[in-house]
Amino acid sequence: MMVVKVGGAQGIDYDAVLQDVANYKDLVLIHGGSCELNTFVERLGKKPKMVTSASGYVSRRTDRETMELFTMVYAGKMNKMVVEKLQQLNVNAVGLSGIDGRLLMGKRKNIVIVENGKKKVLRDDYTGRPEKVNTELLLSLLEKGYLPVVTPPALSYQRERINADGDRAAALIASSLEADTLILLSNVPGLLRNPEDEESLIERIDKKSMGTAMDYAHGRMKKKIMGAVEALEKGVGQVILGDARIENPVTEALRGKGTVIQ
Amino acid sequence: MMVVKVGGAQGIDYDAVLQDVANYKDLVLIHGGSCELNTFVERLGKKPKMVTSASGYVSRRTDRETMELFTMVYAGKMNKMVVEKLQQLNVNAVGLSGIDGRLLMGKRKNIVIVENGKKKVLRDDYTGRPEKVNTELLLSLLEKGYLPVVTPPALSYQRERINADGDRAAALIASSLEADTLILLSNVPGLLRNPEDEESLIERIDKKSMGTAMDYAHGRMKKKIMGAVEALEKGVGQVILGDARIENPVTEALRGKGTVIQ
Repeated sequence: MMVVKVGGAQGIDYDAVLQDVANYKDLVLIHGGSCELNTFVERLGKKPKMVTSASGYVSRRTDRETMELFTMVYAGKMNKMVVEKLQQLNVNAVGLSGIDGRLLMGKRKNIVIVENGKKKVLRDDYTGRPEKVNTELLLSLLEKGYLPVVTPPALSYQRERINADGDRAAALIASSLEADTLILLSNVPGLLRNPEDEESLIERIDKKSMGTAMDYAHGRMKKKIMGAVEALEKGVGQVILGDARIENPVTEALRGKGTVIQ
Repeated sequence: MMVVKVGGAQGIDYDAVLQDVANYKDLVLIHGGSCELNTFVERLGKKPKMVTSASGYVSRRTDRETMELFTMVYAGKMNKMVVEKLQQLNVNAVGLSGIDGRLLMGKRKNIVIVENGKKKVLRDDYTGRPEKVNTELLLSLLEKGYLPVVTPPALSYQRERINADGDRAAALIASSLEADTLILLSNVPGLLRNPEDEESLIERIDKKSMGTAMDYAHGRMKKKIMGAVEALEKGVGQVILGDARIENPVTEALRGKGTVIQ
């Protein structure tokens, strides 16, 4: 069993990714949509808003109105684009968001920000962390030959839609399904020593040196490393941070191209 | 087994509909999104376009760009709104579009219009008619206790998304599942003798007098009657055209409120 996450950042060629995904069976695909959501928000004459939590993490400010747009882009535009392309490749894909069948359930977070030197909880923010996966639903689809295509949002225990990080959702799905391999594809070659230099790729990381890996991680890469740690701790065989911009990105990642964490 | 379709027109209280839907098991829900799509198209500074075919039917002009917006509204906004509300009512809903798992497959139509007195085929239009239902997928979800929430678009045999009429899709799903009852809920009390007068409800129609029923049907009601005829011909026990704007609209329809066609 293999879990593949493909990001929603700029520069990712979904056609190439999906053409390669179509070569595999027993695969669950998770996708993002961050860049498309920003474009969409701007098209509506608004500005995408990010917040930095008191502990230093940057995430999307997801009030209820943003969640509506988030759902339209992730579960509408992106998810059905992926499903349609896979159907054209003769793969019988089924698109699901985390709220469908309680596929991804978790806690809504209290995002704490610092404003004018004071800590403040964002009360109307719908961001959270998935903790439970409905593996039965995924396994029954896989058994029948479908390829599940999963996207945030997730569902909170209060049954509200919550914005959940796609990399960590993928890590949770991989460990819940006891997958051998988790591949996180994005618009970089893997973990870089110097984020400005694509030649500075770190090719192998040992489980024990994850602390050092975290030091090299910047921005979105932090969540990928956190996801990788969580997945490995819960029994996933290997996590590969691969490049989504190349031909056959899944096959290349399996061949060891990227950052392999074991 | 019961199939319920709830329209996407103005004036429909989804909270009331879903509260009642939650009282039933062995139910497949189909929804629309027409009014929301018009609002969304206008919000993007465009005008919703309708076309009248040479044979007199009015449908949405669905070029590829419209299909993108259509998917965002139907499969994103509306479908996940319904799933979230059902989850809040403790019903484990799973939202699917017709392209997921090839749930609804059919022919892309050649829409023929008349322009300046000449017939013209709309080559870039993505409208079609579903002919096949993946009943296995629906039944396996029902068996496991999920409530499937289905929405257009459907998938063409060339694996393109197609805009499909929700009432006729519901009729096809009902007959494919050999449902006892198909309920079509909309923002009118049922089939009216005079569309301007809600008191002129036709309460019962015999299968044999469907021709007369078709004479009374105007606009969207024509598709409902066509759907009803198709469903009854293929063995569905009864079709009820009910009012979506009242409390307990499913229960009231089952009690005979609306137009019952047997």
